[in-house]
Amino acid sequence: MTATPPTQDAGALPSTALVIGCGLIGTSAALALTARGVRVHLRDAVPGVAEVAASVGAGTVEPAVAPDLVVVAVPPAAVAETALAALEEFPHAVVTDVASVKRPVTEAVTGTPGAARFVGGHPMAGTERSGPTAGSALLFEGRPWAVVPLPESAPEAVALVTSVVQALEAVPTPFTPDQHDEAVALVSHVPHLVSVLTAGLLASAPREHIDLAGPGLRDVTRIAGSATGMWLQILDSNAAAVTALLQSLRGDLDRVLDALAAGGDVLTGRLSDVLDAGRAGTQRIPGKHGEVRTESASVFVPVEDRPGVLSQLMTDIGESGVNIEDFRIDHEYGRPVGLAQVEVAAERADHLTSSLTARGWSAYR
Amino acid sequence: MTATPPTQDAGALPSTALVIGCGLIGTSAALALTARGVRVHLRDAVPGVAEVAASVGAGTVEPAVAPDLVVVAVPPAAVAETALAALEEFPHAVVTDVASVKRPVTEAVTGTPGAARFVGGHPMAGTERSGPTAGSALLFEGRPWAVVPLPESAPEAVALVTSVVQALEAVPTPFTPDQHDEAVALVSHVPHLVSVLTAGLLASAPREHIDLAGPGLRDVTRIAGSATGMWLQILDSNAAAVTALLQSLRGDLDRVLDALAAGGDVLTGRLSDVLDAGRAGTQRIPGKHGEVRTESASVFVPVEDRPGVLSQLMTDIGESGVNIEDFRIDHEYGRPVGLAQVEVAAERADHLTSSLTARGWSAYR
Repeated sequence: MTATPPTQDAGALPSTALVIGCGLIGTSAALALTARGVRVHLRDAVPGVAEVAASVGAGTVEPAVAPDLVVVAVPPAAVAETALAALEEFPHAVVTDVASVKRPVTEAVTGTPGAARFVGGHPMAGTERSGPTAGSALLFEGRPWAVVPLPESAPEAVALVTSVVQALEAVPTPFTPDQHDEAVALVSHVPHLVSVLTAGLLASAPREHIDLAGPGLRDVTRIAGSATGMWLQILDSNAAAVTALLQSLRGDLDRVLDALAAGGDVLTGRLSDVLDAGRAGTQRIPGKHGEVRTESASVFVPVEDRPGVLSQLMTDIGESGVNIEDFRIDHEYGRPVGLAQVEVAAERADHLTSSLTARGWSAYR
Repeated sequence: MTATPPTQDAGALPSTALVIGCGLIGTSAALALTARGVRVHLRDAVPGVAEVAASVGAGTVEPAVAPDLVVVAVPPAAVAETALAALEEFPHAVVTDVASVKRPVTEAVTGTPGAARFVGGHPMAGTERSGPTAGSALLFEGRPWAVVPLPESAPEAVALVTSVVQALEAVPTPFTPDQHDEAVALVSHVPHLVSVLTAGLLASAPREHIDLAGPGLRDVTRIAGSATGMWLQILDSNAAAVTALLQSLRGDLDRVLDALAAGGDVLTGRLSDVLDAGRAGTQRIPGKHGEVRTESASVFVPVEDRPGVLSQLMTDIGESGVNIEDFRIDHEYGRPVGLAQVEVAAERADHLTSSLTARGWSAYR
């Protein structure tokens, strides 16, 4: 290595930072750093974009001279090249990125002179919007943020990036690059493709078939509705991990097809194993506060679809002294009425049902 | 046929009905019919179950002598046999069922003397609970209810079942048996299996990988968490339609694997077609009120996780004059804070964000 990373006290923030790429994530990080007193410089390859980010308070477009930290927040396909260039341009800066796949940038930086000053990162945050005007300093609050050092990364560099993640109120979560890419294939890329493939079946189906759709189909296909551009770069750069999981899924799918062809007792035996494994899988997804899931139950309440009704319902739930674990509205087929599904701790569901009934709601479990 | 179905005015309800099978659906139908003045008799193969249904007000356990309508609401595997027996036992009754697959009962009844008096049915309603105490007269409000006559079904029998569905405030939706089974394979059975297979990948994954899970994974896998018993019977009886769609899905999955193996421009071209088809599919799912979907947008609001906070949020949204299209809470990783996602008409999202900000919330788009 040609330069030592800046020495930082544990938990100290950089004095100056450069954010390269002023989309949703870059601008949000810049806004949050600015709010915490860091002097943030902004840069974007597209003329005018950094100026828009500056105009919403994310920082300054004045060139950075010797930033302590560079955050590379460019589109996935450009991350490796941009990170390498930043390590060279700023020989005293710690450089991090926010790409959702870590293999390309890891391979590019490993073995280069600046590698000790590079620490990869990946905030598990986003909205369906993009661009600098979608940025928010609050975007990362409470979200996991994978911190992905190289074997060569200096401990001080890791500490600085971890401090920044904590200052942005995200939860720093350490990973090796390979572990990270396998993890996001599992929790994000493969579920996205599965959702897309299921939704794709609807594209050519008769209208009246789709009219029978309920909340289950909407849940499974929701994420398939998002924009496609970024996903192509993500899937290309994480093809190995995604392929391994999809092949496993394909094997499971073939076992289901075999069981369906066999029918009767063979079907029952094989499919109950598949269904049980699925149920066991859902139990492993973290519940609120990262705790082990507590058993919850749903209370259903038909609600008129106009302003004020949900407010009254929430007030009445609050007065029942029952805390809401989850809440959803399913709009009813062909009618100006919605069905609110209120998820609460299982042992509180009967109390909530009778309490809401006493307050005039048609609640049921 | 040995008997003509009872003549009914359009929209008239039966005077007396027999509900066979007092689980969630049977008891709910009995409660709703009783509430509308129909004399409802209850029967269940398991001793004591009909008595429990009677005790919650669903009807009487006195034997039915000559009911106008029989509702067969027994577990899927017993529907065909029970419907045939009911047609024979009550030679003047119209018989309907509520099974989620229509082929078995259709094949059993077709060509029998009572076939003119049989009209299949399938309410698209349910909760995660089961048994008579879970029943609710409100269960069917606004839900699609497939009405599935045989070619031999008498028009009067179809009219009676349609009237009953309407009286229960469900939306009668006509199907042939084959169309129905293909439709539920598409909107329910295959999405369920896809959710199960995706959740199954989590069963053996490292804990720290799953800790990166976000709302997308929870959406895709939510329905995989439900009980497995009924699903085995459903999948067995609808194996043909489910298999056809799963094979189509498998072909699409293979195309994705081929594209991932090719990488680069080939991947981009092929996967963008797949992603676009998925997005087009989600656009076909009916929006609220069965209308074409209007474009909506999300406003995010961090909320403390204690009673009263959501009530205040709903009040403030109501006072902003913005109607809520959908509402969700994502509990944040490791923190006693949730992130409310408020979906509203796209053109109202900026107004809501600024209105909530002015009221002291940290809202962002």
